[in-house]
Amino acid sequence: VEANAEAAGGAAPTQGRRSRARHRREAQVEFNRIVAFSDGVFTIAITLLVLGLFIPEGVSDLTETLLKQSGDLFAYAISFAVIGRFWLVHHRFFSGLERFDDTLMRLNLLYLGFIGLVPFSSQVLGDYGDQTAATVLYALNMIAVTLAFALETGYAHRHGLIRAGETEQETHLARRSSVLFSVIFGSSIPVAFVSPTAASLMWIALFLVGRRLVRRLPPPR
Amino acid sequence: VEANAEAAGGAAPTQGRRSRARHRREAQVEFNRIVAFSDGVFTIAITLLVLGLFIPEGVSDLTETLLKQSGDLFAYAISFAVIGRFWLVHHRFFSGLERFDDTLMRLNLLYLGFIGLVPFSSQVLGDYGDQTAATVLYALNMIAVTLAFALETGYAHRHGLIRAGETEQETHLARRSSVLFSVIFGSSIPVAFVSPTAASLMWIALFLVGRRLVRRLPPPR
Amino acid sequence: VEANAEAAGGAAPTQGRRSRARHRREAQVEFNRIVAFSDGVFTIAITLLVLGLFIPEGVSDLTETLLKQSGDLFAYAISFAVIGRFWLVHHRFFSGLERFDDTLMRLNLLYLGFIGLVPFSSQVLGDYGDQTAATVLYALNMIAVTLAFALETGYAHRHGLIRAGETEQETHLARRSSVLFSVIFGSSIPVAFVSPTAASLMWIALFLVGRRLVRRLPPPR
Amino acid sequence: VEANAEAAGGAAPTQGRRSRARHRREAQVEFNRIVAFSDGVFTIAITLLVLGLFIPEGVSDLTETLLKQSGDLFAYAISFAVIGRFWLVHHRFFSGLERFDDTLMRLNLLYLGFIGLVPFSSQVLGDYGDQTAATVLYALNMIAVTLAFALETGYAHRHGLIRAGETEQETHLARRSSVLFSVIFGSSIPVAFVSPTAASLMWIALFLVGRRLVRRLPPPR
Repeated sequence: VEANAEAAGGAAPTQGRRSRARHRREAQVEFNRIVAFSDGVFTIAITLLVLGLFIPEGVSDLTETLLKQSGDLFAYAISFAVIGRFWLVHHRFFSGLERFDDTLMRLNLLYLGFIGLVPFSSQVLGDYGDQTAATVLYALNMIAVTLAFALETGYAHRHGLIRAGETEQETHLARRSSVLFSVIFGSSIPVAFVSPTAASLMWIALFLVGRRLVRRLPPPR
Repeated sequence: VEANAEAAGGAAPTQGRRSRARHRREAQVEFNRIVAFSDGVFTIAITLLVLGLFIPEGVSDLTETLLKQSGDLFAYAISFAVIGRFWLVHHRFFSGLERFDDTLMRLNLLYLGFIGLVPFSSQVLGDYGDQTAATVLYALNMIAVTLAFALETGYAHRHGLIRAGETEQETHLARRSSVLFSVIFGSSIPVAFVSPTAASLMWIALFLVGRRLVRRLPPPR
Repeated sequence: VEANAEAAGGAAPTQGRRSRARHRREAQVEFNRIVAFSDGVFTIAITLLVLGLFIPEGVSDLTETLLKQSGDLFAYAISFAVIGRFWLVHHRFFSGLERFDDTLMRLNLLYLGFIGLVPFSSQVLGDYGDQTAATVLYALNMIAVTLAFALETGYAHRHGLIRAGETEQETHLARRSSVLFSVIFGSSIPVAFVSPTAASLMWIALFLVGRRLVRRLPPPR
Repeated sequence: VEANAEAAGGAAPTQGRRSRARHRREAQVEFNRIVAFSDGVFTIAITLLVLGLFIPEGVSDLTETLLKQSGDLFAYAISFAVIGRFWLVHHRFFSGLERFDDTLMRLNLLYLGFIGLVPFSSQVLGDYGDQTAATVLYALNMIAVTLAFALETGYAHRHGLIRAGETEQETHLARRSSVLFSVIFGSSIPVAFVSPTAASLMWIALFLVGRRLVRRLPPPR
């Protein structure tokens, strides 16, 4: 009956200080709001990507203009895949979370702040994909997202906020995947100074083989 | 009591590998997040359509400018109807889903990627509706959405992720409706090279009689 | 136990044809998705209003430009109030809804289509509030919203989808309020041809005294 | 069983007039919608911030243009932090709320109206951060948000809508934090007339030490 009442109203009196980590069942409504807020930022950011494609009224040759949009479409596709992938990983991280506290919520906000920048980096990449600066900006944005996520998951790990067992292994997998992500995007920055296109190809390769690579590495001790 | 605890926290320990299809009751929170994410993309895409209508500051004759917006209004109306229709069908598909796995989530992201492009295609259609390129772009976007949905529902079907019984019939209906959609939008592409307006009229006809047509065809064996 | 299982998974098998009106408890997940979708459109539309205020980079006198934004701020304020009010009424209507069917969902989409246009009408009103065309456009948008809502609630009423008792009285109140809304916005259209400002003042008056007026009228027989 | 049925459908018949404050458990669906609506506005506003960063197509020196975006990045960062902070506080306020009524919902809308303006103020701050008018606009927006929140929480407090006990202390903390917020942003306005940069530094200081400051003050009697 107790658990039931909570599910119904989320109204269980909070015990202790607010900085204490709370169990997700204990603060069901709050936990759901954090999840919903995160999902909201992901969803809106992913949908705002399309704004980078809008074309002005009154262009003289529409067919030509649309055919030239291939850079924009590439940026849209990769950014949709990137945000979608981050969302899946974030999703998995949160479903394995057992407790949460204020610090975790702040680190989550930091992380979301960098996710929220992706439509900007993507717009620049779409319009200036052949220039080094655009490629570097995009890679920096990706690295910032990954580092913020490493901070967030590392904090959760160190403070025992994650459910034990298999889920913990999943977190290891997610974190190892983050490292691969940082390494590829990091090493694409010097490459971009030679050839922005080569840097973009590295990102595509990451998406095609990255997942398999991460799974083949030996499991964490 | 068991089912109750899950409803409260979605915290049932996951058994087996993550690539295994999970029952929606087993992973309630996750399932709801996927639904919420999908709905979010639909909702934001449908609401971003209005941005295609915005007019610049300082036009000399406002009345004339507004009266010329009929193309924009047509694009808004048809895109709202299209996204709304897709949402209803997606909605029905998900309510009949009993299990889900990672591949289904990826196919769902692919599908949402094309839904997210509709505000762009719609903006181009609104501003250049009398040109072949705009009409072809719009039709291609619609076909891509439909094919992605066919992939998603086909996968769910083949892997037994859908609840048996009447709901399965609904899925057949939804898939047959997708075929009609593709055929009409596909055949409107050559028409658009002769007359973009005729192509638009085909789409309107699809909306007016399509549903009745689909229902009259014999039920799947 | 039965009701409980449904709350947990929303997975009760659907009985009968899909066009049949279903009880909200029977199709909990679906009902919640419709509510969430509607709320999403309201929320995004209300938040997109701010885009009408954005100013270009590089204006010469910022202070003057900002002070001239009073028209934009008025449009923002009234549109925020309007969408907020519509949301409250829609909110109340849905909380009194006991069953829903496909037609109701379609009428709801039509209604949301006009809600989604408000950011456009508001942007035009903000930039051209001293012109008749802008005022008429805004009033027409409001009337379309109200009529679509009358269609939706009228349908729900005629088909017994609303919970009996006091809630029904609330629906009457909501519908009467819609009539007042239409009358004021409708009669502001001819006024706008003489003075757009006078039309705007009528709207403000509607917000200040409208609610009290509606409550003072005799209850429905 | 009773509480259970409500959790499942939110379908408990409303007793008494609608202006009566209702318990959140009694009107679960409605309460959740208000929370979702508020979260939606926060989420969309925070994600729209990125639109202030978009750069036009065809700038001659991309590297230089991007390096000049530091003002925009500062505005993005501080606005993300501000909206995120407001969200946390609002979040906490709502989780301590036991009852709600129509007036509270209206005050909440007023509050959200000012939250929704932040992307505009932030865009102006990003592009004109070195000008007094931009800094004053931003500070005024922050003060309006804080005052509206004070109205909302004050009303909830006076009408006994908040759960007794520790949560009440949290509300005191939140309100005291609001006062500090208003004082800092208020006093930054005259400072902005001398140096807009100094005003910005005051805001940063508020974020770095504000929380600690509020916690050190003696608890409310």
